[in-house]
Amino acid sequence: MTIALYPGTFDPLHYGHLDIARRAARLFDHLVVAVYEHPAKPVLFSATEREELFRRAVEDLPNVRVERYAGLTVSYARALGATAIVRGLRAISDFEYEYQVALMNRHLAAEVESVYLLTSLGYAYLSSSIVKEVASLGAPLDGLVPTHVAEALAAKFQR
Amino acid sequence: MTIALYPGTFDPLHYGHLDIARRAARLFDHLVVAVYEHPAKPVLFSATEREELFRRAVEDLPNVRVERYAGLTVSYARALGATAIVRGLRAISDFEYEYQVALMNRHLAAEVESVYLLTSLGYAYLSSSIVKEVASLGAPLDGLVPTHVAEALAAKFQR
Amino acid sequence: MTIALYPGTFDPLHYGHLDIARRAARLFDHLVVAVYEHPAKPVLFSATEREELFRRAVEDLPNVRVERYAGLTVSYARALGATAIVRGLRAISDFEYEYQVALMNRHLAAEVESVYLLTSLGYAYLSSSIVKEVASLGAPLDGLVPTHVAEALAAKFQR
Amino acid sequence: MTIALYPGTFDPLHYGHLDIARRAARLFDHLVVAVYEHPAKPVLFSATEREELFRRAVEDLPNVRVERYAGLTVSYARALGATAIVRGLRAISDFEYEYQVALMNRHLAAEVESVYLLTSLGYAYLSSSIVKEVASLGAPLDGLVPTHVAEALAAKFQR
Amino acid sequence: MTIALYPGTFDPLHYGHLDIARRAARLFDHLVVAVYEHPAKPVLFSATEREELFRRAVEDLPNVRVERYAGLTVSYARALGATAIVRGLRAISDFEYEYQVALMNRHLAAEVESVYLLTSLGYAYLSSSIVKEVASLGAPLDGLVPTHVAEALAAKFQR
Amino acid sequence: MTIALYPGTFDPLHYGHLDIARRAARLFDHLVVAVYEHPAKPVLFSATEREELFRRAVEDLPNVRVERYAGLTVSYARALGATAIVRGLRAISDFEYEYQVALMNRHLAAEVESVYLLTSLGYAYLSSSIVKEVASLGAPLDGLVPTHVAEALAAKFQR
Repeated sequence: MTIALYPGTFDPLHYGHLDIARRAARLFDHLVVAVYEHPAKPVLFSATEREELFRRAVEDLPNVRVERYAGLTVSYARALGATAIVRGLRAISDFEYEYQVALMNRHLAAEVESVYLLTSLGYAYLSSSIVKEVASLGAPLDGLVPTHVAEALAAKFQR
Repeated sequence: MTIALYPGTFDPLHYGHLDIARRAARLFDHLVVAVYEHPAKPVLFSATEREELFRRAVEDLPNVRVERYAGLTVSYARALGATAIVRGLRAISDFEYEYQVALMNRHLAAEVESVYLLTSLGYAYLSSSIVKEVASLGAPLDGLVPTHVAEALAAKFQR
Repeated sequence: MTIALYPGTFDPLHYGHLDIARRAARLFDHLVVAVYEHPAKPVLFSATEREELFRRAVEDLPNVRVERYAGLTVSYARALGATAIVRGLRAISDFEYEYQVALMNRHLAAEVESVYLLTSLGYAYLSSSIVKEVASLGAPLDGLVPTHVAEALAAKFQR
Repeated sequence: MTIALYPGTFDPLHYGHLDIARRAARLFDHLVVAVYEHPAKPVLFSATEREELFRRAVEDLPNVRVERYAGLTVSYARALGATAIVRGLRAISDFEYEYQVALMNRHLAAEVESVYLLTSLGYAYLSSSIVKEVASLGAPLDGLVPTHVAEALAAKFQR
Repeated sequence: MTIALYPGTFDPLHYGHLDIARRAARLFDHLVVAVYEHPAKPVLFSATEREELFRRAVEDLPNVRVERYAGLTVSYARALGATAIVRGLRAISDFEYEYQVALMNRHLAAEVESVYLLTSLGYAYLSSSIVKEVASLGAPLDGLVPTHVAEALAAKFQR
Repeated sequence: MTIALYPGTFDPLHYGHLDIARRAARLFDHLVVAVYEHPAKPVLFSATEREELFRRAVEDLPNVRVERYAGLTVSYARALGATAIVRGLRAISDFEYEYQVALMNRHLAAEVESVYLLTSLGYAYLSSSIVKEVASLGAPLDGLVPTHVAEALAAKFQR
């Protein structure tokens, strides 16, 4: 039985994240979407909000669960018994950063494998930052995020 | 039960290829190393030789088998019932080429997923081309390829 | 009145090329698609065939015409009175090559501007090489090239 | 009649920006340099200052005007009737960011085309950040920015 | 007699920095490790601490000395009579930034040459940022930084 | 006393190569320009011609000599007692290839250091391939190669 971890900040999740999660769920027996509680950069949504938004987006997938974590990603992977960390690759700038993180993770926990999926073409231009910027300017979010995330963004920026 | 395909020309295999195969064998139930018979570029080793050299290198791995194939990689994956195509990523130039191939493969067979592992640090500088160049100049191949591949290369260049 | 040149080998044209041509035709008064007669790499289609295949694909666009040329691209641009050379950018490897060519072109003819359009998302994985490879393996070409180009490719590979 | 938009923060403009503006002014009937009022990053010069500095630098170009804008760039382009957004490409890191922005802009307003010019060789190393850093250390700014911008920078850092 | 400068923030130094310093010390008669006093980004260690940590790490190298500096790097190089600025290249994102800095430095002081060494394979994933992140999460630092730097990091994060 | 090696195919040398050689000659006591006799790709000029063209271009530099070599570059460096191999970096695609070669060289001869200089801005678009292509089309070569190389190219293409 293979357990895979899909870690991220997900502030908030967008269709690119959801695409990676759905595809990873077909490759592994169990997938844990792991929401990083305390990222270095300031976040728009709290860890609880980010977790709830993702949970609602994958509630139709029986082998996926969504959790929060703190500390080293590889320590959390070990604690779960995960053999793979899943990451999406969107572009070359992703690649270099991901390579650095993957090598550090292997230095820290050689038995946890990093596995990459390439972002689907239709979502290659999506990032949480650009979604937040578009939302802050009041532009429509169709095709970028699920409806419940669009509503959550609208609520944040109306305040 | 997950079947994964690891396709390539492997002319000849080097430790970077072997590293990807061993790591993929831990992630999936069955791994088929698929030697591409008729690559566009001229090869040093015949398809049979390339297949045999790889088979000998993984004979200790019970869930790995080595086969030859022709035609589209995704058609071969479909015929085997594979859900994943495994590829190693070594550098950014790999990334762009692999992205193009992965998108074309998804266009042709959306149900077969492309999965990437990053080359281990110690093998990041290895390619079959550079191995053949080093071998052709008579330099030692320790740490680059398994012994039986070094012998096969020496035999090719002594002729 | 602005005349723009869209030069290339187009062996054969695919939907990515057509997308650039159609978008450039909206930006400039006249667009000349310029088929390079004698590329360094061997071609599948003759210069006349490549020209005819492109002409047929743009016959609904009144301000576009298709021509063949030899020699320096900037000399041909000058002879036509073109102020812009249009090129599609698909990926980073394109970018470096195009930068080198653009700088050399400016060295040779400073008054001709190089203008870049980014390939539409749906065609980012298309190249003439990969289209020919897919066609040579007998896979379907829907969504990759116009029907008359698919027929021309089929004819080439059936021979 | 083609109207093109050249948007940016321009904090402050440097010779690389000016080079793009002058070259774009030769390609299109009208060029609007659009100074983004409220960028996410802190700015050294106010929107009014950035607008005035650019206006003074292009006062010899009859078909160029300089304006300020807020909100989505594509909405401003639409409001002006612009068919093209002009951007300078300096390096590969620019390319990836610009690709993401261009794809998002096409998602939001498919009728506005993004057009790229490559930075002239002599200005490839210029960025507003590095100009401000050099100015803050008191080094001479010849060849980097127009004289009136050098004076404005000196005034900022003398305060 | 050649004097080379190895400038950086070194907040704190890690084995990748030390590797560059040791290799540069074999290439040039004298090497000055130059600790930049006032970087734009906030630092964990004071300039004095960063200087002392590096000095202790190279005390066995007779032709290396460690100094602090402020202002333009090229002005400091000139003041020392250095003919070369040494920098480590780790990845492509480094390359672009370093290119920009090197071109600006040549603009400011054409007689000081920038010289690059490629990071040793074993340290390609190291950066001061990732070391600080790992240290802040309490993970072991073996193989990443010298012992006295690991102790200094532990002291900072225990406070 | 430091001996540095500047190896290459130089088919033919252009101003970018000459710029690297002149700058390296200021950094090291002795510089050996090493012309690779038997490159994998077909060459326009014989090894003797490539050597003579480079020798003539550096005859004013007393600490530079030009030689031919065969076999591994690091073996030749060892035989000469060179401590450094000098290479020019022009672009990111260079960087990846050079990284692979440098790592292989270190695997084969750890005591020979690879040192990189960045191509001067004015020559960033130069490569021997593009020079030969321009020459074959009869365009002027001013600013690209020294006069005696332009004459040698003209002679080759007039035949």
